[in-house]
Amino acid sequence: MAIGFKITKEDGQSRARLGLLHTSHGTVQTPIFMPVGTQATVKTMTPDEVCSCGGELILSNTYHLYLRPGHELVAEAGGLHNFMRWDAPILTDSGGFQVFSLGPLRKITDQGVTFRSHIDGSEHFFSPEKSMEIQMALGADIVMAFDECIPYPCSYEQTKDAMKRTTSWAVRCRTRHNREDQALFGIIQGGMFRDLRLQSVAELTTLDFSGYGIGGLSVGEPKPMMYEVLDYLVPAMPKEKPRYLMGVGSPDCLLEGVYRGVDMFDCVLPTRIARNGTVFTKEGKLVVRNAEYARDFRPLDPECDCYTCRNFSRAYIRHLIKANEVLGIRLTTLHNLRFVLKLMQNIRAAIVGDYFVEYKDEFLRRFKLD
Amino acid sequence: MAIGFKITKEDGQSRARLGLLHTSHGTVQTPIFMPVGTQATVKTMTPDEVCSCGGELILSNTYHLYLRPGHELVAEAGGLHNFMRWDAPILTDSGGFQVFSLGPLRKITDQGVTFRSHIDGSEHFFSPEKSMEIQMALGADIVMAFDECIPYPCSYEQTKDAMKRTTSWAVRCRTRHNREDQALFGIIQGGMFRDLRLQSVAELTTLDFSGYGIGGLSVGEPKPMMYEVLDYLVPAMPKEKPRYLMGVGSPDCLLEGVYRGVDMFDCVLPTRIARNGTVFTKEGKLVVRNAEYARDFRPLDPECDCYTCRNFSRAYIRHLIKANEVLGIRLTTLHNLRFVLKLMQNIRAAIVGDYFVEYKDEFLRRFKLD
Ligand SMILES: [Zn+2]
Ligand SMILES: [Zn+2]
Repeated sequence: MAIGFKITKEDGQSRARLGLLHTSHGTVQTPIFMPVGTQATVKTMTPDEVCSCGGELILSNTYHLYLRPGHELVAEAGGLHNFMRWDAPILTDSGGFQVFSLGPLRKITDQGVTFRSHIDGSEHFFSPEKSMEIQMALGADIVMAFDECIPYPCSYEQTKDAMKRTTSWAVRCRTRHNREDQALFGIIQGGMFRDLRLQSVAELTTLDFSGYGIGGLSVGEPKPMMYEVLDYLVPAMPKEKPRYLMGVGSPDCLLEGVYRGVDMFDCVLPTRIARNGTVFTKEGKLVVRNAEYARDFRPLDPECDCYTCRNFSRAYIRHLIKANEVLGIRLTTLHNLRFVLKLMQNIRAAIVGDYFVEYKDEFLRRFKLD
Repeated sequence: MAIGFKITKEDGQSRARLGLLHTSHGTVQTPIFMPVGTQATVKTMTPDEVCSCGGELILSNTYHLYLRPGHELVAEAGGLHNFMRWDAPILTDSGGFQVFSLGPLRKITDQGVTFRSHIDGSEHFFSPEKSMEIQMALGADIVMAFDECIPYPCSYEQTKDAMKRTTSWAVRCRTRHNREDQALFGIIQGGMFRDLRLQSVAELTTLDFSGYGIGGLSVGEPKPMMYEVLDYLVPAMPKEKPRYLMGVGSPDCLLEGVYRGVDMFDCVLPTRIARNGTVFTKEGKLVVRNAEYARDFRPLDPECDCYTCRNFSRAYIRHLIKANEVLGIRLTTLHNLRFVLKLMQNIRAAIVGDYFVEYKDEFLRRFKLD
C-alpha cells in the first residue's frame, strides 16, 4: 500500500475524527491543513520555515510544474521532494482546477482538455492519462485523479455531465496510474445537487481509491451551502478512507469542516492574504498595512508564538510592506501559516481531550468574520 | 568614548591591518564588510539570517528612513536597533549621497540641500544639522557627517568647492552632534585630485573625528584610479582611527582596499546583483538565471558553506527566479552575502597568519573579472 490511514479516535459530539496518515515520506496526524507550494515553493518561505510553523504535508500544483520547469526536469532532479528539498509528504493536485479556471483559453472533450499556457500562450493538452504521467514524474506521495471542475453557479444538466465525465476520467486515471509508492485519490463532484453528489461518491467508491477529495466546493457559494453539502456528503463517503476538502483554509471553515468529518484541507488563502498585508489574529483578520498600525508597537497577535510575533511590531511590519520590502510579506506569511497550523494542532488536541465542540464554539465566538 | 578602535596587528607586506572596533552594541573585528539595510532591513533577509551569514555591523540609510517611516517614529520605537531587531552595531550614512544622487530634483546652497522625495515628490531640506538630528533620532552606533558628493568625472573647480563645503559642513556636524553613545565619522572628499584629497584629510583631521570615511570613490571611475587615490590618501589619514571606504563591495575591490589599509566597507552590490540572479563563486560571477543552468543540479558554489549551497541546486534556484518566486532571490542574496562575509573572515585570518598577500593573489588569480 502506498499509504495507510488509521482512525485513532472519533469525537462523541460531532463527526470530527483523529487519524494517522502513513505515506512514503512519513506519517502525519489528521485533521491536517496543507500549505500550498504552487511552483515547488511555499511562497516566500524556505522548507525549514514551513516546517518550523508546523507544516507536515504540502500541496504542489501539477499545472504549474508541468509548464515550468517541466515535469521531466523535476524527475531528472530526483523528483519534487529532492528538487525543492522537502523531505516530508507531498500531495499534487491533478491540474484540473487550474486548466478549467483558464476560462476561454480552454476546450473540453471527453478525451481531455486543450488549453493555452498563462505564461506564453502555447497550446497544451491534458487528459487523465497525461495528468497521471506528470504526477508520476513529479513523484508526490499522494496524487489526485483528473476531474472536470465547474463554476458556481452551474445548471443541473451541466453539473451532471461534468460529474459523469469525472467518473469516467477517474476510471482512466485508475488504469493509467501505476506508481506503487504513490496513493491515488478520487475527486467527488456534483456541485450543489444532493443526488449528483451521492451518485458521484457511489460511483467513485466502487473504484476503491486510497482517499477521496471533495471538489467543487469553496468556489464562490455561500458558506452555509458548503456546510449543507458536507452534512449529507461526508456520511456517504467511505469511513476508513481520508476525506480531503479541497481549497478550504479560512479558520472558521477549517473548524466547520473538521466538525463535519473532514480529514484534510488545503488553501492559498493564509499565504495569499499575508502578501496583501492581512493577518489572522484570535479576534479575526487585521489589515496591518492600514495607517492605524503605523505606531502600534505590539506584535501582530500577542498570543502567537511564531518568529514574527516573538520579534517584530505591527509598526515595523507595516513599514516593510509600505516600502515593498520582501521581509514584510515573509513575516506576515510566516505568521498566517503558523496561525492556521497551530489552529489544526489545537483542533487535534481538542479531539483528543474530548472538548472539540467547546473549542470550536469558543474560537468562533472570538474570531470576527468579515 | 562612543567607540574605541585598537589596531591589533599590522601586515608586514602591505598596509593591511587587523583591528577591534568597540561600539555601544558590541565589538567587531576589522577589516569588516557592512551589509546594507537601506530601509531598516537587509533586503529579503531576517536579522537572524544576516547574522548567520557572518554579518556583524550593518549600514542603514538616513535619507530613506527620514522619508519612510520617519525618524521620529523610529525613535518612538526605541531607536533603529529595537525597531528592526538588530542588536549588533549599526552605522547610518548622512543622507548626502542619496540627496545628491537625485540630480535635477535637488538644489544646493551653503546652508544645505533642498530636494524632492523620490516617493511622493514632496519638498524637503537637509542641512548638516538636520542630518545630525535625524541620525541621533535613529540611534546608530556610528553616524556620518553630511558631505557634498560630486559625480565622476568632475572639474577641478567644482571638486574643490564641494570639498571646501564638505569641510565647513563637517564643522557644523561636529558642533551639532551631541549623542555620547554615538561615534561621528568625517568624510574625506576631493575627487580624483591629489592635492584636494590631501587638503580634505588635513582639514578634517583637525576636527578629530572618531573615524574617517573616504567618499567620492567607486562612483564610476576606473578601478586603477580608485586604487591610486587610496595609495596616496590612506597614508595621510590618522593611523589610529578606522578608515571606511564607502560604497565598495566587489570581492576584488575588498582585497585591494584591505591591501591599501582600509578597515571598513559597505556596498549594495552583493545583495543587488543577487536579486538580479547573479551570484559570486570562487571562479567569478555566475548568472544563474541563464538557460545553461536549467539542468545543473550542482550548488551555486560547491565550496560555499551557506544554507543555499548546502541545500539547493542551480536548477532549482533558476526555476524560482524565472517563476518570480521570492525564495529565489532570498537564496541568492543569502549566498552572496555569505560569500563576501566569508571572504572578509578569510582576509582577517590571512592577516593573522601572515599570508594575506599570497591569499589575495591566489584569490584574484581564480576570480575572473567581467
Ligand atoms: Zn505570529
Ligand atoms: Zn552559498
